Amino acid sequence: MANQSDSSCVHKVGFPPRRSLATDFTRGLKETFFADDPLRPYKDQPRSKQLALGLRFLFPALEWGRDYNLSKLKGDIIAGLTIASLCIPQDIGYAKLANMDPQYGLYSSFVPPLVYAVMGSSRDIAIGPVAVVSLLLGALLQNEFDPVTQKEEFRRLAFTATFFAGVTQAALGFLRLGFLIDFLSHAAIVGFMGGAAITIALQQLKGFLGIKKFTKNTDIVSVMRSVWGSVEHGWNWQTMLIGSAFLAFLLAARYIGKKKKQQLFWVPAIAPLISVILATLLVYVTRADKHGVQIVKKIEKGINPSSVDQIRFAGSFAAKGFRIGVVAGMVALTEAVAIGRTFAAMKDYQLDGNKEMVALGTMNMLGSMTSCYVTTGSFSRSAVNYMAGCRTTVSNVVMSLVVMLTLLVLTPLFEYTPNAILSSIIISAVLGLIDYEAAYLIWKVDRFDFMACMGAFFGVVFTSVEIGLLVAVSISLAKILLPVTRPRTALLGNLPGTLIYRNVEQYPEAIRVPGVLIVRVDSAIYFSNSNYVKERILRWLREEEEQQNANDLPRVDFLIIDMSPVTDVDTSGIHALKELHRGLQKRDVQLGIANPGAVVVEKLRLAEFIELIGQEKLFLTVGEAVIGCAPKVSEDV
Amino acid sequence: MANQSDSSCVHKVGFPPRRSLATDFTRGLKETFFADDPLRPYKDQPRSKQLALGLRFLFPALEWGRDYNLSKLKGDIIAGLTIASLCIPQDIGYAKLANMDPQYGLYSSFVPPLVYAVMGSSRDIAIGPVAVVSLLLGALLQNEFDPVTQKEEFRRLAFTATFFAGVTQAALGFLRLGFLIDFLSHAAIVGFMGGAAITIALQQLKGFLGIKKFTKNTDIVSVMRSVWGSVEHGWNWQTMLIGSAFLAFLLAARYIGKKKKQQLFWVPAIAPLISVILATLLVYVTRADKHGVQIVKKIEKGINPSSVDQIRFAGSFAAKGFRIGVVAGMVALTEAVAIGRTFAAMKDYQLDGNKEMVALGTMNMLGSMTSCYVTTGSFSRSAVNYMAGCRTTVSNVVMSLVVMLTLLVLTPLFEYTPNAILSSIIISAVLGLIDYEAAYLIWKVDRFDFMACMGAFFGVVFTSVEIGLLVAVSISLAKILLPVTRPRTALLGNLPGTLIYRNVEQYPEAIRVPGVLIVRVDSAIYFSNSNYVKERILRWLREEEEQQNANDLPRVDFLIIDMSPVTDVDTSGIHALKELHRGLQKRDVQLGIANPGAVVVEKLRLAEFIELIGQEKLFLTVGEAVIGCAPKVSEDV
Repeated sequence: MANQSDSSCVHKVGFPPRRSLATDFTRGLKETFFADDPLRPYKDQPRSKQLALGLRFLFPALEWGRDYNLSKLKGDIIAGLTIASLCIPQDIGYAKLANMDPQYGLYSSFVPPLVYAVMGSSRDIAIGPVAVVSLLLGALLQNEFDPVTQKEEFRRLAFTATFFAGVTQAALGFLRLGFLIDFLSHAAIVGFMGGAAITIALQQLKGFLGIKKFTKNTDIVSVMRSVWGSVEHGWNWQTMLIGSAFLAFLLAARYIGKKKKQQLFWVPAIAPLISVILATLLVYVTRADKHGVQIVKKIEKGINPSSVDQIRFAGSFAAKGFRIGVVAGMVALTEAVAIGRTFAAMKDYQLDGNKEMVALGTMNMLGSMTSCYVTTGSFSRSAVNYMAGCRTTVSNVVMSLVVMLTLLVLTPLFEYTPNAILSSIIISAVLGLIDYEAAYLIWKVDRFDFMACMGAFFGVVFTSVEIGLLVAVSISLAKILLPVTRPRTALLGNLPGTLIYRNVEQYPEAIRVPGVLIVRVDSAIYFSNSNYVKERILRWLREEEEQQNANDLPRVDFLIIDMSPVTDVDTSGIHALKELHRGLQKRDVQLGIANPGAVVVEKLRLAEFIELIGQEKLFLTVGEAVIGCAPKVSEDV
Repeated sequence: MANQSDSSCVHKVGFPPRRSLATDFTRGLKETFFADDPLRPYKDQPRSKQLALGLRFLFPALEWGRDYNLSKLKGDIIAGLTIASLCIPQDIGYAKLANMDPQYGLYSSFVPPLVYAVMGSSRDIAIGPVAVVSLLLGALLQNEFDPVTQKEEFRRLAFTATFFAGVTQAALGFLRLGFLIDFLSHAAIVGFMGGAAITIALQQLKGFLGIKKFTKNTDIVSVMRSVWGSVEHGWNWQTMLIGSAFLAFLLAARYIGKKKKQQLFWVPAIAPLISVILATLLVYVTRADKHGVQIVKKIEKGINPSSVDQIRFAGSFAAKGFRIGVVAGMVALTEAVAIGRTFAAMKDYQLDGNKEMVALGTMNMLGSMTSCYVTTGSFSRSAVNYMAGCRTTVSNVVMSLVVMLTLLVLTPLFEYTPNAILSSIIISAVLGLIDYEAAYLIWKVDRFDFMACMGAFFGVVFTSVEIGLLVAVSISLAKILLPVTRPRTALLGNLPGTLIYRNVEQYPEAIRVPGVLIVRVDSAIYFSNSNYVKERILRWLREEEEQQNANDLPRVDFLIIDMSPVTDVDTSGIHALKELHRGLQKRDVQLGIANPGAVVVEKLRLAEFIELIGQEKLFLTVGEAVIGCAPKVSEDV
C-alpha cells in the first residue's frame, strides 16, 4: 500500500489559474442566460448568411418550408383534421370555463395557431385554449368583474390580460429568462394539474346535473354545497341522462384509444365531435330544451372581430390585466414548454425554450387583438396530433382553417347542442391531466417531492387555483433552500484493501479509522448553513469522543473534512471554517482538508485559510489525508 | 495498474438500507429544528433533575449564579460602569434617531438589560437601544404617523411595534426557527450596516450644522438637498464649532483606544460622557442657546412609566405595529445573535441561538410595557464590555442601575446639553459599523458576495433602510438559488500514475482519456437545473465531438458522470438523466455513473434508472468506471 500512496502523493491539490472578474462574470452570465450558446451558428459567417440565419431563427417555417413535400403535407392534413374535430367541441366548453361566450373559444383556435405555425419551433404541439388556463383565467377575471352583469368589462379585462400574458411570455424569452419557469418543479406541476382537473370536473357538475344556481368558488367544499343544496330544486333527469350516456361513450372511446394506441388513436379524437352531433340531433328532434335541458343557444357567426380597442395599456385597469396576465401567461408557458420538450425528446430534435417563449408571446399578443383569450399548447390535442402523424406546424394551419370554416358556416348548427354534452367532453378530457402514475412514482422516489405534489393538489382542490399555484411555487423553492440550510453530513470509512473512503452508512463494509474522524459535507458551505456545518462537525466529534470514552478507544487526534461535494464556499463559510479550526485547536485536534475543488481552494487561499492551517494539511484524496495526518495509524489499516 | 484495479473492484456501489418514511421525516425534522440536540442533557435523568435543568435552561442566571464570586463581581462592576458612561449619551442621541423624546432612550437602557441579565446566555453582550434599529424603527414609524404633529399615535405605535418585535423574536426561538435569520448573509449585513452608518451620520448633519428645516427622507440625495438648501438660511457657526471640536476629540479618543486596545480601551468609552459634561457646562456658562445653539431642553425625570395601556393588540393599528415590529425585531435579532456568536467564539462557550431569541423576545415584550422601544445588543458597547473585563450579565445590571440613578436624579443636568454634541457622539459611534476591512476581504474572496454587500449598501444610502434590507435579503436568496439553477460542470482527466481523476482546469497535469468523456456535475440535480444539466452534458459531448472531427481523434464511445458532488436528485432530475441516456443511445455512446451517494443511488434504483442503464454501469470510482467502460483504452493510460 505504501507504494500506491507514494505514487499518488506526487500530485498536490491544484490551484486553478486566477481568472479576472470580467472573465468570471462573463462566464457566469453566459451559463445563466446563454447556456444553449445560441450565437454559435453565426460565428465566422458573412453578414448576408447571418441575416438569413437570423430570419430562419425567428421564423422556423422558413427552415422546414424548404424541404416540405407532399408526403409531409398528407400527414399534416390528416393530423390537422383530427385535432380540429377534437378542438371544436373542447373550445366551446373551455370558453364557458373561462366565463366567456362560446365563440371566443373558437376564435382562440383560429388566429393563434396560424401565428405559431410561422414562428414556433415545436412540430407536434397543438395550439388553442386549454382547460387549466381557461379555468385559471376565468377565476382570476371573476375576482375583478362579474361575468354576467359586467360582461363588457369582463371581456375587456380578458383581452387586456391576454395581451399582457403575451408580453410576459415574449419578454421572458427575449430577456432569456426562460429558466425562471424551471422553478416550478415537475412534482408541483403534477399536483397542480391533477388538482385543476378535479376542480374543472367538479365545475362540470353544473352542466351535467342541470343546476341553475351554482357557486362561483371553485373549491370542493363550496361546489359540493352547491350540488347538495340544489337537490331540493331537483336535478334535471333528461340532462343527466344525456350527460351520463355520452360520458360513458367518451370514456369507452378513451379506453379503446388507450388499448390500441397505434391503430385506434383516432377513436377518442373524433368521439367528442360525434357525441356533439348525436346529442344535438337528439335535442333538436325531441325538443328536450323545452324540458329543462340547457343548450348552447347561440354562437356568433363569422370570424374573429378586432379587439384592439378593448385592450387598455395604462391605468389601474391595465394594472389588473397585467397582474392576471403574468400569472396566466406563466402557467400557459409552463404547459407549452413541458409539451414541447416532451415531444422534442421523443422525435429527438432541439427546442430552444427562449425562442419558443417569444413565439408563444407574439401569438398571444396578436391573439388579444383578435378577440382571443390566452392560448397555449394542449396536452390532449398535442398527443393526438403526434399520434395522427403530424410532420410540421402545418397541421395547426389545417386545424385553424377548419375552425375558420366552422365559424363562417357551421355555428348555427350548435344552437341545440346541450351543455351537458360539453361538460361530458370536458370531464373526459381533463381526466387525462390526472397523472396518478407520475404521482405514484414521485411517492416512491422522493417523499419531499410528493409533499410538494400533494400540497399543490390539495391547495387547488380545497381553496383555489391561485392558492394552489402559490403553494406549488413555495414548496418548490423551499425544496431548494432546505438542503442548502441543513446539508447532509456523513462519516467516512475505509473500504478494506483500497485507498478509497466512503460513507459508512452506504457502505457497511467500510471501516472507520481509529483516531481519525473523517466527515464529508454534502453541500456548498454558505452563509445559510455555515454555522450549522460548523456545529454539526463539532457534534460528530463530541459524539465520537463520548463513544471512545465509553469504549476505551484511542482519542481522536485528526479531523479530516472531505470537500469533494463542497462545490462552493463564501465568506461566511470560510469564517465558520476558521472558527472550527480554532475550536479544534483548543481540543488539540488537527484539521485536514481533502480534495477541495477549484473554486473552493482559490477562495480558501485568498482568505488566508490555507496559510492558517498550513499548506501541508491540504490533500488530494481522503486516503492521502489519512496517511499524511496519521502515518502511524494508516499503517495499521 | 491491472492489479490495483482488481483490488478495488471487489467493492460495489453500496445501497443504503431503506429507511421508512417516518425515520426519514423525523431525521429531517431533527436536523432542521433540533440540530443542537437540546434535549440531550435531559435524557435518563430523574424528573426533579429534569425540572432543575429546565429552569436553569430558561434562566441561565441560576447556572452561573451558583459559582459567582467577588472577583467576578469586581470585573462586572468595572465593565458595567464603563458601558453606563458610554450608553447614557448614546441613548439620548439614539432616541432622537427613532424620533422619540430623549428619556425613552434612557428608559430602554433600564428595564431590558435587567430582563436579559436573568434570561440571556451571552456573557458579553451589552443591551440597550442601538443606532441601526433606532433609525429603522423611526423611519418605519414615520411612514405611518408624523412624530411631531401626531406624537401620541407615534409613541403608541412605537410601543405596539416593540411588543410585536418581542413576540416575533420569542416565537422564532420557541418554534426553533432561529435558522431563518441565517438567510441574511454576512456580506449583506456588512453592506447594510455600512449603509445604515452613512445614513445615520448624514442625519446628524441636522444637529451638527444646526439646520432647522430638514428632510424626513433618509436617502443621501434628499439629505444633501436639505443641507445645501439650508445654506442660504445660514448654518449656525457656534453649533458647528462645538460639534467639530468635540467630534475631533471623540475621534482622537477612538484612535487612541484602537492603538492600545488592552490598556486604553476605556478612553473612547468615557470620552462621550466627558464631552457631554464639558459641552453642557460650556453652553450653560456662555448661554450659547440664546445664539441659536439647539439644546436638549428637557428630559422627563423619574423611571419608566407603564405603557401597557398604549399597546394595541388587535385591529388595523395592531396590524401596522405587527408589520413594523417583525422587520425591526428581525434586524435587532440579527445584530444580537451576530454579537453573541462573536464573543461566544472568542471566549469559547456555547450559545443556544433559539434560547437567546426567547430571552431577547421576552425582554422586548416586557420593555414595550415599560415605555421602552426595541432594544438589542450594541456592537460598540458589547466590545467595550468585553474589553473592560465583564464576566457575566451582571455588568448589564450595573449599567441598568446607573441609568436608573440618572433617570431619578441627573436628568435636569442634561437640559443645556447641545444637540450638536449628541450628533458628534452618534457619528463617532456609527463609524465603527463601517467595516471596510470586511468589505475588502469579501471583494477579494467572493465577487458575488461583494455584489450583495454593495447592493445592500447602496440600497440603504440611496433609497431607504427598508429597501436596502429588501435588497440584502433578495441578493442573499438569489445567491443560494443561482448555483442550484446553473450548477458548474467540469471535465475530468487522469492524474498520471494514479487512478485518480480530477478537474482538468484545476489540475493542468491531468490527462483526458481518449474516447471517454468524463463529466462531473457540481450540484444536486433538481427540477430547477435538470434540463440545464442534461443540455450542458450534451453540449460537452458535442464540443468534444467537433474537436475530434477537427483533429482526427478517436470518437467518444463512453460518457462517465462523476456523481460525487451530486448530493441529491429528484424526479425531474431522474427524468433528465433518462432523457440523457436516450439521447446518448441514439448517438451510440454508453453512459456510466461513478460514485453516486446513498440518497442518489437509492432514488435511481426506485425510479428504475439503474435497471435501464444496467447495474454494471454503476462504478465505485471514476477510475473503475474508465476501466469498466473502456478496458482497452484504460490500458493505454
